[in-house]
Amino acid sequence: MSGPVLAIDQGGTKLLCALVEEGHVLDQATLPTDREAGPEAWLDAATELAARWEGRYDRVGIAVTGRISDGLWSALNPGTLAIPAETPYAAMAEARLRRPVTLANDAQAAAWGEHLHGAGAGQDMIYLTISTGIGGGIVTGGRLLSGRGGLAGHAGQMKGLTPEKGPLEDRMSGRWIARAARETGHDTDARGVFSAARAGEGWAEEIVSTAAARAAALCTDLQMLIDPPRIVIGGGVGLAPGFLDRIRAALAALPAALRPELRAAKLSGGAGIIGIAELARA
Amino acid sequence: MSGPVLAIDQGGTKLLCALVEEGHVLDQATLPTDREAGPEAWLDAATELAARWEGRYDRVGIAVTGRISDGLWSALNPGTLAIPAETPYAAMAEARLRRPVTLANDAQAAAWGEHLHGAGAGQDMIYLTISTGIGGGIVTGGRLLSGRGGLAGHAGQMKGLTPEKGPLEDRMSGRWIARAARETGHDTDARGVFSAARAGEGWAEEIVSTAAARAAALCTDLQMLIDPPRIVIGGGVGLAPGFLDRIRAALAALPAALRPELRAAKLSGGAGIIGIAELARA
Repeated sequence: MSGPVLAIDQGGTKLLCALVEEGHVLDQATLPTDREAGPEAWLDAATELAARWEGRYDRVGIAVTGRISDGLWSALNPGTLAIPAETPYAAMAEARLRRPVTLANDAQAAAWGEHLHGAGAGQDMIYLTISTGIGGGIVTGGRLLSGRGGLAGHAGQMKGLTPEKGPLEDRMSGRWIARAARETGHDTDARGVFSAARAGEGWAEEIVSTAAARAAALCTDLQMLIDPPRIVIGGGVGLAPGFLDRIRAALAALPAALRPELRAAKLSGGAGIIGIAELARA
Repeated sequence: MSGPVLAIDQGGTKLLCALVEEGHVLDQATLPTDREAGPEAWLDAATELAARWEGRYDRVGIAVTGRISDGLWSALNPGTLAIPAETPYAAMAEARLRRPVTLANDAQAAAWGEHLHGAGAGQDMIYLTISTGIGGGIVTGGRLLSGRGGLAGHAGQMKGLTPEKGPLEDRMSGRWIARAARETGHDTDARGVFSAARAGEGWAEEIVSTAAARAAALCTDLQMLIDPPRIVIGGGVGLAPGFLDRIRAALAALPAALRPELRAAKLSGGAGIIGIAELARA
Protein backbone atom coordinates (compact mmCIF):
# COMPACT_ATOMS: atom_id res chain seq x y z
CA MET A 1 0.00 0.00 0.00
CA SER A 2 1.41 3.41 -0.85
CA GLY A 3 0.58 7.06 -0.30
CA PRO A 4 1.30 9.31 2.67
CA VAL A 5 0.51 8.19 6.22
CA LEU A 6 -0.38 10.34 9.19
CA ALA A 7 2.29 9.31 11.69
CA ILE A 8 1.90 10.23 15.36
CA ASP A 9 4.50 9.82 18.06
CA GLN A 10 2.81 10.40 21.42
CA GLY A 11 5.70 10.79 23.83
CA GLY A 12 5.82 11.66 27.50
CA THR A 13 7.02 15.21 26.88
CA LYS A 14 6.16 15.85 23.24
CA LEU A 15 3.53 14.98 20.66
CA LEU A 16 4.99 14.73 17.16
CA CYS A 17 2.72 14.44 14.15
CA ALA A 18 3.98 14.06 10.60
CA LEU A 19 2.94 13.28 7.10
CA VAL A 20 5.27 10.47 6.01
CA GLU A 21 5.72 8.82 2.65
CA GLU A 22 8.14 5.99 1.94
CA GLY A 23 10.56 6.88 4.67
CA HIS A 24 10.40 10.62 4.06
CA VAL A 25 8.86 13.18 6.39
CA LEU A 26 6.90 15.51 4.09
CA ASP A 27 5.80 17.83 6.88
CA GLN A 28 5.64 17.77 10.66
CA ALA A 29 4.34 19.60 13.70
CA THR A 30 4.65 19.23 17.46
CA LEU A 31 2.93 20.16 20.70
CA PRO A 32 4.06 19.64 24.28
CA THR A 33 2.30 16.72 26.00
CA ASP A 34 0.03 17.54 28.88
CA ARG A 35 0.87 14.43 30.83
CA GLU A 36 -2.04 14.72 33.24
CA ALA A 37 -4.69 15.38 30.57
CA GLY A 38 -5.25 11.76 29.56
CA PRO A 39 -5.87 9.87 26.32
CA GLU A 40 -8.86 11.83 25.00
CA ALA A 41 -6.99 15.10 25.35
CA TRP A 42 -3.89 13.62 23.71
CA LEU A 43 -6.06 12.60 20.76
CA ASP A 44 -7.57 16.12 20.69
CA ALA A 45 -4.09 17.51 20.28
CA ALA A 46 -3.17 15.01 17.56
CA THR A 47 -6.40 15.70 15.69
CA GLU A 48 -5.70 19.42 15.86
CA LEU A 49 -2.18 19.01 14.46
CA ALA A 50 -3.37 16.60 11.76
CA ALA A 51 -6.07 18.97 10.47
CA ARG A 52 -3.52 20.72 8.25
CA TRP A 53 -3.05 17.50 6.23
CA GLU A 54 -6.77 16.63 5.88
CA GLY A 55 -7.44 14.69 2.71
CA ARG A 56 -3.78 13.85 2.17
CA TYR A 57 -3.61 10.53 4.04
CA ASP A 58 -5.75 7.42 4.26
CA ARG A 59 -3.98 5.58 7.08
CA VAL A 60 -2.75 6.51 10.54
CA GLY A 61 0.10 5.09 12.62
CA ILE A 62 0.49 5.94 16.28
CA ALA A 63 3.62 5.15 18.30
CA VAL A 64 3.39 5.33 22.08
CA THR A 65 5.50 4.43 25.06
CA GLY A 66 4.30 1.32 26.89
CA ARG A 67 2.92 -2.04 25.97
CA ILE A 68 0.60 -2.49 22.99
CA SER A 69 -1.40 -5.63 22.39
CA ASP A 70 -4.30 -5.92 19.92
CA GLY A 71 -4.72 -2.15 19.74
CA LEU A 72 -4.84 -1.85 23.54
CA TRP A 73 -2.36 0.42 25.31
CA SER A 74 -1.07 -0.28 28.82
CA ALA A 75 1.58 1.66 30.70
CA LEU A 76 4.71 -0.22 31.68
CA ASN A 77 6.11 2.77 33.52
CA PRO A 78 3.18 4.96 34.64
CA GLY A 79 5.76 7.64 35.46
CA THR A 80 6.07 8.41 31.74
CA LEU A 81 2.41 8.47 30.71
CA ALA A 82 -0.17 7.19 33.18
CA ILE A 83 -2.78 5.50 31.03
CA PRO A 84 -5.36 3.01 32.35
CA ALA A 85 -4.50 -0.64 31.57
CA GLU A 86 -5.74 -1.84 28.17
CA THR A 87 -6.98 1.52 26.94
CA PRO A 88 -8.47 0.88 23.44
CA TYR A 89 -6.42 3.71 21.96
CA ALA A 90 -6.47 2.38 18.37
CA ALA A 91 -10.27 2.28 18.35
CA MET A 92 -10.48 5.69 20.03
CA ALA A 93 -8.18 7.16 17.41
CA GLU A 94 -10.09 5.51 14.55
CA ALA A 95 -13.33 7.05 15.81
CA ARG A 96 -11.62 10.44 15.89
CA LEU A 97 -9.54 10.37 12.72
CA ARG A 98 -11.89 8.18 10.65
CA ARG A 99 -9.06 6.16 9.12
CA PRO A 100 -7.60 2.71 9.94
CA VAL A 101 -5.12 3.13 12.82
CA THR A 102 -2.06 1.03 13.56
CA LEU A 103 -0.84 1.35 17.15
CA ALA A 104 2.63 0.22 18.24
CA ASN A 105 5.25 0.69 20.89
CA ASP A 106 7.48 3.66 20.06
CA ALA A 107 10.82 1.89 20.37
CA GLN A 108 9.56 -1.04 18.30
CA ALA A 109 8.39 1.44 15.66
CA ALA A 110 11.76 3.19 15.74
CA ALA A 111 13.52 -0.16 15.33
CA TRP A 112 11.42 -0.83 12.25
CA GLY A 113 12.19 2.63 10.88
CA GLU A 114 15.94 2.16 11.35
CA HIS A 115 15.69 -1.32 9.84
CA LEU A 116 14.02 -0.11 6.66
CA HIS A 117 15.43 3.38 6.18
CA GLY A 118 18.26 3.91 8.65
CA ALA A 119 21.29 2.23 10.18
CA GLY A 120 19.76 -1.24 9.97
CA ALA A 121 20.17 -1.21 6.20
CA GLY A 122 17.52 -3.90 5.84
CA GLN A 123 19.38 -6.36 8.05
CA ASP A 124 18.18 -8.06 11.22
CA MET A 125 19.09 -5.89 14.18
CA ILE A 126 18.40 -4.81 17.70
CA TYR A 127 17.67 -1.14 18.23
CA LEU A 128 18.44 0.41 21.60
CA THR A 129 17.51 3.97 22.42
CA ILE A 130 19.49 5.16 25.41
CA SER A 131 17.78 8.29 26.59
CA THR A 132 16.00 9.30 29.81
CA GLY A 133 15.24 5.57 29.99
CA ILE A 134 16.13 2.73 27.63
CA GLY A 135 13.78 1.35 24.99
CA GLY A 136 14.37 -1.13 22.24
CA GLY A 137 13.09 -3.19 19.37
CA ILE A 138 14.13 -6.43 17.70
CA VAL A 139 14.01 -7.26 14.01
CA THR A 140 14.60 -10.92 13.28
CA GLY A 141 13.90 -12.91 10.14
CA GLY A 142 13.11 -9.58 8.47
CA ARG A 143 10.20 -9.10 10.85
CA LEU A 144 9.60 -6.76 13.78
CA LEU A 145 9.13 -8.76 16.96
CA SER A 146 6.23 -7.54 19.08
CA GLY A 147 5.88 -10.64 21.25
CA ARG A 148 3.02 -12.39 23.01
CA GLY A 149 1.68 -9.20 24.57
CA GLY A 150 3.77 -6.41 23.05
CA LEU A 151 6.71 -6.48 25.43
CA ALA A 152 9.43 -7.48 22.97
CA GLY A 153 12.49 -5.23 22.94
CA HIS A 154 12.18 -3.88 26.47
CA ALA A 155 15.88 -4.41 27.12
CA GLY A 156 16.00 -1.58 29.64
CA GLN A 157 13.37 -3.30 31.77
CA MET A 158 15.48 -6.40 32.29
CA LYS A 159 16.97 -6.72 35.78
CA GLY A 160 19.70 -9.33 35.51
CA LEU A 161 20.02 -11.47 38.61
CA THR A 162 19.77 -8.38 40.82
CA PRO A 163 16.07 -7.47 40.58
CA GLU A 164 16.37 -5.65 43.90
CA LYS A 165 18.37 -2.97 42.08
CA GLY A 166 15.53 -2.28 39.65
CA PRO A 167 15.59 -2.33 35.87
CA LEU A 168 18.89 -2.05 34.01
CA GLU A 169 17.86 1.32 32.56
CA ASP A 170 17.98 2.76 36.09
CA ARG A 171 21.66 1.90 36.22
CA MET A 172 22.86 3.48 32.95
CA SER A 173 20.24 5.79 31.36
CA GLY A 174 20.09 9.56 31.34
CA ARG A 175 18.10 9.44 34.56
CA TRP A 176 20.87 7.42 36.20
CA ILE A 177 23.56 9.76 34.88
CA ALA A 178 21.78 12.77 36.42
CA ARG A 179 21.31 10.96 39.71
CA ALA A 180 24.94 9.87 39.81
CA ALA A 181 25.91 13.51 39.24
CA ARG A 182 23.77 14.66 42.16
CA GLU A 183 25.38 12.01 44.35
CA THR A 184 28.77 13.57 43.63
CA GLY A 185 27.35 17.01 44.48
CA HIS A 186 26.72 18.22 40.90
CA ASP A 187 23.19 19.38 40.21
CA THR A 188 22.96 18.88 36.44
CA ASP A 189 21.35 16.63 33.83
CA ALA A 190 22.88 14.05 31.50
CA ARG A 191 23.77 16.76 28.97
CA GLY A 192 25.63 18.68 31.66
CA VAL A 193 27.52 15.57 32.70
CA PHE A 194 28.63 14.91 29.10
CA SER A 195 29.81 18.53 28.78
CA ALA A 196 31.76 18.29 32.01
CA ALA A 197 33.32 15.01 30.89
CA ARG A 198 34.41 16.62 27.62
CA ALA A 199 35.88 19.48 29.67
CA GLY A 200 37.99 16.88 31.48
CA GLU A 201 36.27 16.89 34.85
CA GLY A 202 37.07 13.63 36.61
CA TRP A 203 33.75 13.11 38.38
CA ALA A 204 31.87 13.43 35.07
CA GLU A 205 34.36 11.30 33.19
CA GLU A 206 33.81 8.52 35.70
CA ILE A 207 30.03 8.65 35.41
CA VAL A 208 30.12 8.58 31.61
CA SER A 209 32.62 5.71 31.64
CA THR A 210 30.45 3.70 34.01
CA ALA A 211 27.35 4.25 31.88
CA ALA A 212 29.27 3.22 28.75
CA ALA A 213 30.67 0.11 30.44
CA ARG A 214 27.18 -0.92 31.52
CA ALA A 215 25.76 -0.27 28.05
CA ALA A 216 28.60 -2.44 26.70
CA ALA A 217 27.67 -5.20 29.14
CA LEU A 218 24.05 -5.01 27.99
CA CYS A 219 25.06 -5.18 24.32
CA THR A 220 27.33 -8.16 25.05
CA ASP A 221 24.40 -10.01 26.63
CA LEU A 222 22.12 -9.17 23.71
CA GLN A 223 24.74 -10.57 21.34
CA MET A 224 24.96 -13.81 23.35
CA LEU A 225 21.21 -14.23 23.46
CA ILE A 226 20.04 -13.02 20.04
CA ASP A 227 23.29 -12.62 18.09
CA PRO A 228 22.06 -9.92 15.69
CA PRO A 229 24.18 -8.80 12.72
CA ARG A 230 24.11 -5.31 14.22
CA ILE A 231 22.94 -3.32 17.21
CA VAL A 232 21.76 0.19 16.37
CA ILE A 233 22.14 2.74 19.17
CA GLY A 234 19.96 5.84 19.35
CA GLY A 235 18.71 8.28 21.94
CA GLY A 236 20.13 11.44 23.46
CA VAL A 237 22.63 9.57 25.61
CA GLY A 238 23.38 6.91 23.01
CA LEU A 239 24.20 9.53 20.37
CA ALA A 240 25.99 11.96 22.72
CA PRO A 241 29.41 12.73 21.22
CA GLY A 242 31.88 10.03 22.12
CA PHE A 243 29.46 7.68 23.88
CA LEU A 244 29.30 5.07 21.12
CA ASP A 245 33.09 5.09 20.87
CA ARG A 246 33.34 4.47 24.59
CA ILE A 247 31.00 1.47 24.29
CA ARG A 248 33.06 0.17 21.37
CA ALA A 249 36.25 0.59 23.38
CA ALA A 250 34.71 -1.42 26.21
CA LEU A 251 33.92 -4.20 23.71
CA ALA A 252 37.25 -4.18 21.91
CA ALA A 253 38.78 -7.03 23.88
CA LEU A 254 36.04 -9.49 22.97
CA PRO A 255 36.69 -12.12 20.29
CA ALA A 256 35.12 -11.04 16.97
CA ALA A 257 32.43 -13.72 17.09
CA LEU A 258 31.14 -12.38 20.41
CA ARG A 259 31.63 -8.67 19.71
CA PRO A 260 28.52 -6.65 18.90
CA GLU A 261 28.64 -4.64 15.69
CA LEU A 262 27.38 -1.23 16.80
CA ARG A 263 25.94 1.44 14.53
CA ALA A 264 24.70 4.93 15.34
CA ALA A 265 21.01 5.41 14.58
CA LYS A 266 20.57 7.46 11.41
CA LEU A 267 17.02 8.71 11.66
CA SER A 268 17.47 10.26 15.07
CA GLY A 269 14.16 11.63 16.40
CA GLY A 270 12.42 10.59 13.19
CA ALA A 271 12.81 6.82 13.50
CA GLY A 272 9.54 6.41 15.40
CA ILE A 273 7.33 8.27 12.94
CA ILE A 274 9.03 6.73 9.92
CA GLY A 275 8.70 3.26 11.44
CA ILE A 276 5.08 3.64 12.51
CA ALA A 277 4.21 4.97 9.06
CA GLU A 278 5.69 1.80 7.53
CA LEU A 279 3.82 -0.39 10.02
CA ALA A 280 0.60 1.41 9.14
CA ARG A 281 1.20 0.76 5.43
CA ALA A 282 2.01 -2.91 5.88
CA MET B 1 12.23 -34.27 2.32
CA SER B 2 11.26 -37.41 4.17
CA GLY B 3 12.85 -40.69 5.22
CA PRO B 4 14.97 -41.49 8.27
CA VAL B 5 17.91 -39.28 9.26
CA LEU B 6 21.05 -40.30 11.10
CA ALA B 7 20.97 -37.97 14.10
CA ILE B 8 24.08 -37.52 16.20
CA ASP B 9 24.31 -35.66 19.51
CA GLN B 10 27.98 -35.25 20.37
CA GLY B 11 27.94 -34.20 24.02
CA GLY B 12 30.71 -33.62 26.50
CA THR B 13 30.09 -36.88 28.35
CA LYS B 14 28.10 -38.97 25.89
CA LEU B 15 27.76 -39.59 22.17
CA LEU B 16 24.19 -40.40 21.19
CA CYS B 17 23.39 -41.66 17.69
CA ALA B 18 19.89 -42.41 16.48
CA LEU B 19 17.85 -43.18 13.44
CA VAL B 20 15.04 -40.62 13.51
CA GLU B 21 11.97 -40.28 11.32
CA GLU B 22 9.37 -37.54 11.65
CA GLY B 23 9.93 -36.92 15.31
CA HIS B 24 10.28 -40.58 16.24
CA VAL B 25 13.44 -42.32 17.36
CA LEU B 26 13.45 -45.63 15.48
CA ASP B 27 16.63 -46.89 17.11
CA GLN B 28 19.51 -45.46 19.11
CA ALA B 29 22.91 -46.24 20.55
CA THR B 30 25.41 -44.44 22.77
CA LEU B 31 29.09 -44.39 23.66
CA PRO B 32 30.89 -42.40 26.33
CA THR B 33 32.78 -39.40 24.92
CA ASP B 34 36.56 -39.49 25.20
CA ARG B 35 36.90 -35.76 25.78
CA GLU B 36 40.62 -35.65 25.10
CA ALA B 37 40.51 -37.69 21.88
CA GLY B 38 39.49 -34.86 19.55
CA PRO B 39 37.18 -34.45 16.56
CA GLU B 40 38.51 -37.25 14.33
CA ALA B 41 38.13 -39.79 17.13
CA TRP B 42 34.62 -38.52 17.93
CA LEU B 43 33.70 -39.06 14.28
CA ASP B 44 35.24 -42.54 14.42
CA ALA B 45 32.90 -43.37 17.28
CA ALA B 46 29.86 -41.92 15.49
CA THR B 47 30.72 -43.82 12.30
CA GLU B 48 31.04 -47.02 14.27
CA LEU B 49 27.64 -46.56 15.94
CA ALA B 50 26.00 -45.58 12.64
CA ALA B 51 27.23 -48.67 10.81
CA ARG B 52 24.24 -50.67 12.07
CA TRP B 53 21.91 -48.38 10.06
CA GLU B 54 23.90 -48.39 6.82
CA GLY B 55 21.65 -47.90 3.80
CA ARG B 56 18.72 -46.71 5.89
CA TYR B 57 19.40 -42.95 5.87
CA ASP B 58 20.42 -40.41 3.25
CA ARG B 59 21.01 -37.36 5.49
CA VAL B 60 22.92 -36.71 8.69
CA GLY B 61 22.33 -34.15 11.43
CA ILE B 62 24.93 -33.49 14.11
CA ALA B 63 24.23 -31.48 17.26
CA VAL B 64 27.21 -30.28 19.29
CA THR B 65 27.86 -28.00 22.22
CA GLY B 66 29.43 -24.69 21.23
CA ARG B 67 29.08 -22.20 18.42
CA ILE B 68 28.31 -23.31 14.86
CA SER B 69 28.62 -21.01 11.89
CA ASP B 70 28.67 -22.17 8.26
CA GLY B 71 29.44 -25.74 9.24
CA LEU B 72 32.39 -24.63 11.40
CA TRP B 73 32.47 -25.61 15.06
CA SER B 74 34.09 -23.43 17.75
CA ALA B 75 34.09 -24.04 21.49
CA LEU B 76 32.45 -21.41 23.66
CA ASN B 77 33.41 -23.21 26.84
CA PRO B 78 36.52 -25.31 26.10
CA GLY B 79 35.93 -27.02 29.48
CA THR B 80 33.10 -29.03 27.88
CA LEU B 81 34.74 -30.11 24.64
CA ALA B 82 38.02 -28.49 23.65
CA ILE B 83 37.86 -28.18 19.88
CA PRO B 84 40.07 -25.88 17.79
CA ALA B 85 38.29 -22.70 16.64
CA GLU B 86 36.39 -23.08 13.37
CA THR B 87 36.89 -26.81 12.99
CA PRO B 88 35.18 -27.79 9.68
CA TYR B 89 33.23 -30.55 11.40
CA ALA B 90 30.39 -30.68 8.86
CA ALA B 91 32.84 -31.28 6.01
CA MET B 92 34.83 -33.80 8.07
CA ALA B 93 31.63 -35.70 8.83
CA GLU B 94 30.49 -35.60 5.18
CA ALA B 95 33.80 -37.10 4.09
CA ARG B 96 33.35 -39.85 6.65
CA LEU B 97 29.63 -40.61 6.35
CA ARG B 98 29.27 -39.81 2.63
CA ARG B 99 25.94 -38.01 3.12
CA PRO B 100 24.98 -34.32 3.38
CA VAL B 101 25.57 -33.20 6.97
CA THR B 102 23.73 -30.46 8.88
CA LEU B 103 25.64 -29.21 11.92
CA ALA B 104 23.97 -27.17 14.67
CA ASN B 105 24.28 -26.16 18.30
CA ASP B 106 22.74 -28.79 20.55
CA ALA B 107 20.46 -26.48 22.54
CA GLN B 108 19.26 -24.79 19.35
CA ALA B 109 18.52 -28.24 17.92
CA ALA B 110 16.68 -29.22 21.09
CA ALA B 111 14.63 -26.01 20.91
CA TRP B 112 13.62 -26.91 17.38
CA GLY B 113 12.71 -30.44 18.46
CA GLU B 114 10.52 -29.18 21.32
CA HIS B 115 8.97 -26.60 18.98
CA LEU B 116 7.93 -29.19 16.40
CA HIS B 117 7.27 -32.30 18.46
CA GLY B 118 7.31 -31.37 22.15
CA ALA B 119 6.18 -28.74 24.64
CA GLY B 120 6.42 -25.93 22.09
CA ALA B 121 3.37 -27.28 20.25
CA GLY B 122 4.37 -25.42 17.11
CA GLN B 123 4.36 -22.03 18.82
CA ASP B 124 7.17 -19.51 19.11
CA MET B 125 9.16 -20.23 22.24
CA ILE B 126 12.39 -20.03 24.13
CA TYR B 127 13.90 -23.30 25.25
CA LEU B 128 16.14 -23.34 28.30
CA THR B 129 17.98 -26.43 29.38
CA ILE B 130 19.10 -26.06 32.99
CA SER B 131 21.62 -28.79 33.57
CA THR B 132 25.33 -28.83 34.44
CA GLY B 133 25.31 -25.47 32.62
CA ILE B 134 22.51 -23.62 30.87
CA GLY B 135 21.85 -23.74 27.13
CA GLY B 136 18.99 -22.41 25.09
CA GLY B 137 17.36 -21.82 21.76
CA ILE B 138 14.89 -19.30 20.39
CA VAL B 139 12.10 -19.93 17.90
CA THR B 140 10.53 -16.76 16.57
CA GLY B 141 8.32 -16.24 13.55
CA GLY B 142 8.21 -20.04 13.23
CA ARG B 143 11.93 -20.08 12.62
CA LEU B 144 14.91 -21.25 14.70
CA LEU B 145 17.20 -18.33 15.41
CA SER B 146 20.87 -19.14 14.93
CA GLY B 147 22.16 -15.59 14.78
CA ARG B 148 25.02 -13.82 13.01
CA GLY B 149 27.59 -16.38 14.08
CA GLY B 150 25.60 -19.15 15.77
CA LEU B 151 25.41 -17.68 19.28
CA ALA B 152 21.66 -17.19 19.52
CA GLY B 153 20.03 -18.72 22.57
CA HIS B 154 23.07 -18.70 24.85
CA ALA B 155 21.04 -17.34 27.76
CA GLY B 156 23.31 -18.96 30.31
CA GLN B 157 26.31 -17.05 28.94
CA MET B 158 24.78 -13.65 29.65
CA LYS B 159 26.34 -11.82 32.60
CA GLY B 160 23.89 -9.06 33.47
CA LEU B 161 25.59 -5.89 34.69
CA THR B 162 27.90 -7.95 36.90
CA PRO B 163 30.29 -9.53 34.38
CA GLU B 164 32.87 -9.88 37.16
CA LYS B 165 30.69 -12.67 38.59
CA GLY B 166 30.89 -14.70 35.38
CA PRO B 167 28.04 -16.03 33.25
CA LEU B 168 24.56 -16.41 34.73
CA GLU B 169 24.77 -20.19 34.41
CA ASP B 170 27.55 -20.19 37.02
CA ARG B 171 25.06 -18.71 39.50
CA MET B 172 22.15 -21.16 39.13
CA SER B 173 23.08 -24.31 37.15
CA GLY B 174 23.83 -27.79 38.42
CA ARG B 175 27.49 -26.82 38.71
CA TRP B 176 26.55 -23.88 40.96
CA ILE B 177 24.22 -26.06 43.05
CA ALA B 178 27.03 -28.53 43.73
CA ARG B 179 29.45 -25.72 44.57
CA ALA B 180 26.95 -24.08 46.91
CA ALA B 181 26.54 -27.43 48.66
CA ARG B 182 30.30 -27.76 49.13
CA GLU B 183 30.40 -24.26 50.58
CA THR B 184 27.93 -25.37 53.26
CA GLY B 185 30.06 -28.44 53.98
CA HIS B 186 28.07 -30.98 51.94
CA ASP B 187 30.05 -32.92 49.39
CA THR B 188 27.36 -33.91 46.88
CA ASP B 189 26.08 -33.10 43.39
CA ALA B 190 22.90 -31.33 42.24
CA ARG B 191 20.93 -34.57 42.45
CA GLY B 192 22.03 -35.03 46.08
CA VAL B 193 21.02 -31.46 46.90
CA PHE B 194 17.55 -31.99 45.44
CA SER B 195 17.16 -35.23 47.46
CA ALA B 196 18.22 -33.47 50.63
CA ALA B 197 15.80 -30.61 49.94
CA ARG B 198 12.96 -33.11 49.48
CA ALA B 199 13.99 -34.70 52.79
CA GLY B 200 13.50 -31.30 54.41
CA GLU B 201 17.13 -30.35 55.02
CA GLY B 202 17.32 -26.59 55.41
CA TRP B 203 20.71 -26.02 53.77
CA ALA B 204 19.56 -27.87 50.63
CA GLU B 205 16.16 -26.19 50.62
CA GLU B 206 17.91 -22.83 50.62
CA ILE B 207 20.19 -23.70 47.70
CA VAL B 208 17.32 -25.04 45.59
CA SER B 209 15.20 -21.96 46.39
CA THR B 210 18.01 -19.65 45.40
CA ALA B 211 18.58 -21.47 42.10
CA ALA B 212 14.84 -21.36 41.35
CA ALA B 213 14.62 -17.64 42.19
CA ARG B 214 17.51 -16.91 39.84
CA ALA B 215 16.00 -19.04 37.08
CA ALA B 216 12.76 -17.08 37.60
CA ALA B 217 14.68 -13.80 37.28
CA LEU B 218 16.24 -15.04 34.03
CA CYS B 219 12.84 -16.07 32.64
CA THR B 220 11.39 -12.68 33.61
CA ASP B 221 14.14 -10.92 31.68
CA LEU B 222 13.62 -13.16 28.65
CA GLN B 223 9.92 -12.32 28.72
CA MET B 224 10.69 -8.57 28.82
CA LEU B 225 13.15 -8.80 25.97
CA ILE B 226 11.61 -11.39 23.62
CA ASP B 227 8.11 -11.91 25.09
CA PRO B 228 7.60 -15.47 23.79
CA PRO B 229 4.23 -17.23 24.10
CA ARG B 230 5.98 -19.86 26.18
CA ILE B 231 9.30 -20.78 27.75
CA VAL B 232 10.08 -24.49 27.71
CA ILE B 233 12.33 -25.71 30.52
CA GLY B 234 14.43 -28.85 30.16
CA GLY B 235 17.60 -30.34 31.61
CA GLY B 236 18.33 -32.41 34.68
CA VAL B 237 17.97 -29.46 37.05
CA GLY B 238 15.08 -27.87 35.15
CA LEU B 239 13.07 -31.10 35.22
CA ALA B 240 14.07 -32.13 38.77
CA PRO B 241 10.85 -32.80 40.74
CA GLY B 242 9.43 -29.57 42.06
CA PHE B 243 11.89 -27.20 40.41
CA LEU B 244 9.51 -25.87 37.75
CA ASP B 245 6.84 -25.31 40.43
CA ARG B 246 9.33 -23.31 42.48
CA ILE B 247 10.10 -21.11 39.48
CA ARG B 248 6.38 -20.65 38.86
CA ALA B 249 5.85 -19.71 42.51
CA ALA B 250 8.59 -17.09 42.22
CA LEU B 251 6.79 -15.64 39.18
CA ALA B 252 3.27 -15.75 40.63
CA ALA B 253 3.22 -12.14 41.83
CA LEU B 254 3.93 -10.72 38.36
CA PRO B 255 1.06 -9.20 36.36
CA ALA B 256 -0.17 -11.68 33.74
CA ALA B 257 1.22 -9.66 30.82
CA LEU B 258 4.74 -9.89 32.26
CA ARG B 259 4.55 -13.43 33.61
CA PRO B 260 6.34 -16.12 31.59
CA GLU B 261 4.25 -19.13 30.62
CA LEU B 262 6.48 -22.06 31.56
CA ARG B 263 6.21 -25.60 30.22
CA ALA B 264 8.22 -28.69 31.05
CA ALA B 265 10.15 -30.04 28.08
CA LYS B 266 8.49 -33.18 26.74
CA LEU B 267 11.21 -34.83 24.71
CA SER B 268 13.69 -34.92 27.55
CA GLY B 269 17.06 -36.26 26.37
CA GLY B 270 15.66 -36.82 22.87
CA ALA B 271 14.98 -33.20 21.93
CA GLY B 272 18.45 -32.68 20.48
CA ILE B 273 18.40 -35.67 18.14
CA ILE B 274 14.80 -35.09 17.11
CA GLY B 275 15.53 -31.42 16.44
CA ILE B 276 18.75 -32.01 14.53
CA ALA B 277 17.00 -34.64 12.41
CA GLU B 278 14.36 -32.07 11.47
CA LEU B 279 17.04 -29.47 10.70
CA ALA B 280 18.80 -32.02 8.49
CA ARG B 281 15.56 -32.71 6.60
CA ALA B 282 14.70 -29.03 6.09
